[in-house]
Parts: sequence; structure tokens; C-alpha cells
Amino acid sequence: MLIVQKFGGSSVADAQRVMNVAQIVTDKYREGNDMVVVVSAQGDTTDDLIVKAQEINPNASKREMDMLLTAGEQISISLLAMAIEKLGFPVVSLLGWQAGFRTNSAYTSARIKKVESERIRAELDKKKIVVVAGFQGINKYDDMTTLGRGGSDTSAVAIAAAMHADLCQIYTDVEGVYTADPRKVESAKKLEEITYDEMLELATLGAQVLNNRSVEMAKKYNVELEVLSSLARRPGTIVKEVTKMEKTLIKGVACDKHVARVKVIGVPDTPGIAFKIFSLIAKAHINVDIILQSIGRDGTKDISFTVPEADGQAAVDALKSYVEKIGAKDLGFDADVAKVSIVGAGMETHDGVASEMFEALYEADINIRMISTSEIKISVLINKDDCDRAVSAIHHKFFDNE
Amino acid sequence: MLIVQKFGGSSVADAQRVMNVAQIVTDKYREGNDMVVVVSAQGDTTDDLIVKAQEINPNASKREMDMLLTAGEQISISLLAMAIEKLGFPVVSLLGWQAGFRTNSAYTSARIKKVESERIRAELDKKKIVVVAGFQGINKYDDMTTLGRGGSDTSAVAIAAAMHADLCQIYTDVEGVYTADPRKVESAKKLEEITYDEMLELATLGAQVLNNRSVEMAKKYNVELEVLSSLARRPGTIVKEVTKMEKTLIKGVACDKHVARVKVIGVPDTPGIAFKIFSLIAKAHINVDIILQSIGRDGTKDISFTVPEADGQAAVDALKSYVEKIGAKDLGFDADVAKVSIVGAGMETHDGVASEMFEALYEADINIRMISTSEIKISVLINKDDCDRAVSAIHHKFFDNE
Repeated sequence: MLIVQKFGGSSVADAQRVMNVAQIVTDKYREGNDMVVVVSAQGDTTDDLIVKAQEINPNASKREMDMLLTAGEQISISLLAMAIEKLGFPVVSLLGWQAGFRTNSAYTSARIKKVESERIRAELDKKKIVVVAGFQGINKYDDMTTLGRGGSDTSAVAIAAAMHADLCQIYTDVEGVYTADPRKVESAKKLEEITYDEMLELATLGAQVLNNRSVEMAKKYNVELEVLSSLARRPGTIVKEVTKMEKTLIKGVACDKHVARVKVIGVPDTPGIAFKIFSLIAKAHINVDIILQSIGRDGTKDISFTVPEADGQAAVDALKSYVEKIGAKDLGFDADVAKVSIVGAGMETHDGVASEMFEALYEADINIRMISTSEIKISVLINKDDCDRAVSAIHHKFFDNE
Repeated sequence: MLIVQKFGGSSVADAQRVMNVAQIVTDKYREGNDMVVVVSAQGDTTDDLIVKAQEINPNASKREMDMLLTAGEQISISLLAMAIEKLGFPVVSLLGWQAGFRTNSAYTSARIKKVESERIRAELDKKKIVVVAGFQGINKYDDMTTLGRGGSDTSAVAIAAAMHADLCQIYTDVEGVYTADPRKVESAKKLEEITYDEMLELATLGAQVLNNRSVEMAKKYNVELEVLSSLARRPGTIVKEVTKMEKTLIKGVACDKHVARVKVIGVPDTPGIAFKIFSLIAKAHINVDIILQSIGRDGTKDISFTVPEADGQAAVDALKSYVEKIGAKDLGFDADVAKVSIVGAGMETHDGVASEMFEALYEADINIRMISTSEIKISVLINKDDCDRAVSAIHHKFFDNE
């Protein structure tokens, strides 16, 4: 089997953890597998380098930022290779460009164009364990680029896709994907399997397990992922196209507290105004999630919608002059909200999932402010303070009664 | 003019010093010069990385050590580029391989095979200041290599040679080359000029200003060097083929305390024994400097010679079984010695330099244990404790009477 493994920064944070990772990798190698290992920069290295840059020039060019940051994985891949050497196995470390990562030129958030995997293949043919720097590549000018935060997941999936790996294991600091955040919901269960689409919804909703781009890429190239912990030696959660867990209606409950609600009060009831508002928001590169339009007083309308919390003020700024022009009564945003969602491909073919969720919230005396649904997801906007209670109540309703 | 500047690790140790270097570089750029700037890793970065490696694997492969260490200059070049950006000048940082440094595959002590300077030239043509990572290159396998300690000097001279630069400025933490160590001899004077050969002798003798390989390369390609300080904004010392300082007999007095004397006592007076002894030493890769052979008692000979202090025991080990076989009386080494030397191309055509030096030592009541001379150098071996006094006495004799 060809296995691609990815270890994040906390998995290689110090010498002891690097040795632990070397043990995991060589155990699989000893079973006769070809091993490609993608590594992020150690622990806080990236943040430390950013601080160094800020001290000198807070407005440094993105090209030079990428030159700086790619040094982080260079350190971690060589240290992991040394640890594998210590255990007596053949190994070679490769930088992004040596491993064939060609990207576009969007410094600090580059996209992978292709992985020219000849070098990796040649090293595997020599029976070497190949350690690859995640997060980085090279553009057409032969300059270093980075894929943005969480990019190492994407690096791993891209190699797995390019080389038709049998499995891509993403090691993190959690043991897999859970039905709810296990730090907050005691009865949360680890899922054996989950589909790409369910994983995408959960990642977007704040489950923070896998980088979204990596899941999208895994889905596109049908790369089987496993999410697992580098500290616990147990099976994790498999992410694949179709799962066998037909009976489970929903896979998880997630909460996103980094949400703001923008309100435009007293908009004249004229055609084209909603269109204009959302095109101004789009022009400001702000993602809108849930939208609600309601009838206000005096024949006017109220429009409200959610955006990422950090974009709340920017959304208001983007609308200000237009809202004044059309004579709306009020414009503002409110970050005191959270979005709670349930995700599961099973709900498509089952009625009553939404009403069960609303019932759980009603029983917990939690007020629903907005609702949004997709084929595999139901989200509600509630007060931020109610978030943890809401997750517990919904999780109890769907999982503890089974 | 095309100027190559090189800044060592202490010159870029922190944010403030990086800004200082950016100022020096851009001042020259503003005068209309094309600027290529070679930088070492910041301060203790290289040592810190070595500690990280030691924690994991004290016997790491040299290939992986080079992968690790080359991250150091990657950090410093990007930070310097950011500092230059902050001052508002166009700049680009380049890694060793991007700057065209092709080396052989002797990891940790690679030799530069050539500098393919097309990229540097293209960036200069765009009017950019080019910041290049010193100390590093790439071999025929596309793997990272390093040139060994002090290799950044060599990187700078290699670029200056490949691009026919008008001047190569080596910035260090001293203001130039002095007639003696200015921390020890108060009246030591900074030299305006010195020849390559004199510089080579002084570097070998412990003046620790320039890396020897870089001076050899500068001589071979006739690159004019200037040694100067990044903190004091004053002219330094020019190193070139012929200097105009005809009148100065000697250029400097240097002391090397890292010397050991190996003694083989009571060697039978038979042909071929000295040859055998020194071929055994050569086989152990130990450099021999001064050699003395004297008549001992009973028709035997005593052979003594100096080696680097760290090789003293190895030299004894290399000779042990042979010395027993020929029945010599004693074998041992003694690190309680130092070598004091005067260097100057002028002494070739002037008599009496040696006797003046010996007179200075006699007046200071310092015993001479061995003597060695070359065309531009006279070295004497003395007791280590007498070293500083000897340098002062000789310096006084040659320089304070002028």
C-alpha cells in the first residue's frame, strides 16, 4: 500500500514528539507500505517568524513573507528525517519544490496547480521513507509560495491524489470526527465514517478538524482520508464518498460562535434593493451565510444576514452610503449570536429532523432567531450565550436516545 | 559600479541590526550602484538549529544537517529584504539555488562548482537590490548543500568573481585588518591595504578576519575585497594583488594559541624514519606546521613538530605503534605553546627582519622554542603564557618606532 501521512505542528512540536511521529511512520513502513509523510512547521515556529517580520516591517511584501515562512517546514522535515534515521530506516526529506509542488503566484494563499511526483516516486523506488514539507510550493518564477494556514492538509491530499495513494492519514490533536465537541459534550461519540459533504459542512461550521480545501480536493479526486491522533494509537474517522452508516440520520452537531448578524432596518419595498445590498457585500469580499427578509412597519422591509464576526464592521461600512441614500431607518451589526447546525446526509430522505431539532431547542428554552437549511444541514442562529446548552440539548435528542 | 556586500550573522542578529544593514545597502544603491548583498544566518540561529538536531539524533546524516541549516539564511534574507522594502527600495531575496550556486555533493563542506548568475543579472536589470543567502547551494541531485563555517564569505567572493563585480565588501565586527589584535595591542593600526598572500598568512595564523577559502578565491579571480565594520561607517582594509605600501616591511603580528607540539624523542639515526613519521601523520589527515629535527644523545635524533591543538592526541595515536617498533625513547605532545608570526610581502627584499623580531623577543625575555620562515612570514613557537607579551614587544619594535 502507498500511504500518505500528515502531521500538524503540534505533533512535531519538540524532540520527543518528533521521535513519536518517527515511530508511527516507521511502524507502517515495517508493515511493507510505501510511506510519504507531510509535515507542518513545528509548534509555534510560524507565529514566531511572523513576529520577527512584524518587528522589521508590518507591511512586508507577501513574496518575502512566503520566503520567510517556508523556512519553518524546512526545519521540521529535516528533524523528522533525522529521527527516522535514528530508528535505522532509510529516509529523505524534500522541500515543497523538490517534491514537485507547482503553484500559482498568489503568495501567502497559493493554489496547487500540479504535483510533479517523479522525485517522490524515485525515492520510494529506492525504498526510502519520503518526508515532504507541507504548506509550500514554487511558482513559475521559481519563487517560494505558501498555501495559507492549514495548507499542509491540502499538500497531503494533493500528493495522495497525484500518486493514487491507498490512504491519506491526517494526524491531528483530536482522535477523529465527533458527533459534537467532546470537550463540551460528554456523551459525544467518535464517528467511524463520514462523507466528504458532511465533513465539508462540519468544517465550515467550526468543527476545526480538517482544512476545507483539503476535503474538497479529497472529494474531487476520491482520496480516502482518515483523521486520527498522533498521541492515541487508535483508529480515527474515515472520510469517504459513501458511508455504510445508513441508520444514523445526523453525523454531528457543531457550533460557530464567530458570527455576526447585520441588520438593515426600514428598507423601502422597491425591487432591486436586496440585490444591490448583497452585491455591495460581495464586492467587499465578505461571505454571507443566513439571510432573512421580513416585513417591517409602514410598508418597509427589514433585511438581516450573517457574516463572519471579523467582517461585521466591514459589512456595515460597505453598506453605509447606499443605506443612507435609500433612506433606510437603521444599519448595524450584532456579534452576540452563534450558529448551531446539525449535519447528516441521512436527513435528505427523512422527514422530521428539523422539527426534532427545534423541539430540542424549545425544551431547553432557547430562542431561534434565524433558520437556514441545505440538503444535508440545518442551521439556526441563537444568542451566543445559549450556544453550549443548545449543542448539548440537540446532541442529547439525536444521540443519547439511540 | 556593481558592488557585492556580505554581512555576517552578528550584523543581522536582531531587528535593529537588520535595519542598520538595510541602511548601509540602500545608501550605496542610492549612489547609483548595482547591489548584490550576501547574508549569513542571524546571530546564533545556526548553533540553535544544531542543538535541535543533537537532541533528536547526534549522528544525523550530513544531507539532513544541510537541509536543516540552510533554513537559517532563508530567514535572514527575507528579513533583510523586508527591511529594505520598508526603506522604500525595490528588492528581491534569493536562496542559494535561486541565485545559481551549484556545488559538489560534499554535504556540510561543499565546494562551489559554478555560479549561474542569470537570475541575479535579471533582477539587477529590473533595478532590484538582490539579497542572496550565503553559505548554501545545491548539488546535481537538486539537494541543499552548505559550504561549511565561514562559507558566506566564499559565497560573496564567488558572486563577485562570476559577475565581475567592481568591489566585494565583507562586513564583519572589526573595522578592518590590523597590525595586531587591537583588543590586546593598544597601538595596533588599521591597514589601508594588504595583499592576498599576506591576508592568507594572517588568516591561517589566527587573525580570524576573513575565511581562507574566500581569500584564495579572491586571489584566483582577482576580486578586490574590502574588510569593514557594519557598525562603524568608516573605510576598512582593502585586500588586493599589489599594494602601494612599499615602505612597510611587515603588515601584522598574529598569535595562534591553538597549537600543540608533538615530540618524538630518541629516534634511531636511520634514513627514512622522518618520511615514515610524516606520512603516518598525513594519513591521519593532520596538518603539520613547524618541524624541528635535532641531535639527541647517544647518536639518536629528536623530532618535534606542531599541529593544531585539537589534533595533538590524534597525532600521538597515529605514531604510537610505529614509534614503539623503532624503539624511540619517548612520544608525547604538549599544548602549552603558542605560535607568534609576522607577515609582510616587504620582508622578501629586506634583510634583518628576522633578527629584529628575535631581538624584540630577547629584550622581553621570551624563549624561542622553534622557528619557521616562508617568503612573507616568520613564525616562532613560544610558551603560551608569553604570547600576548610577545605580540606587544614585536609590534612595538616594528610599528611604534616608525
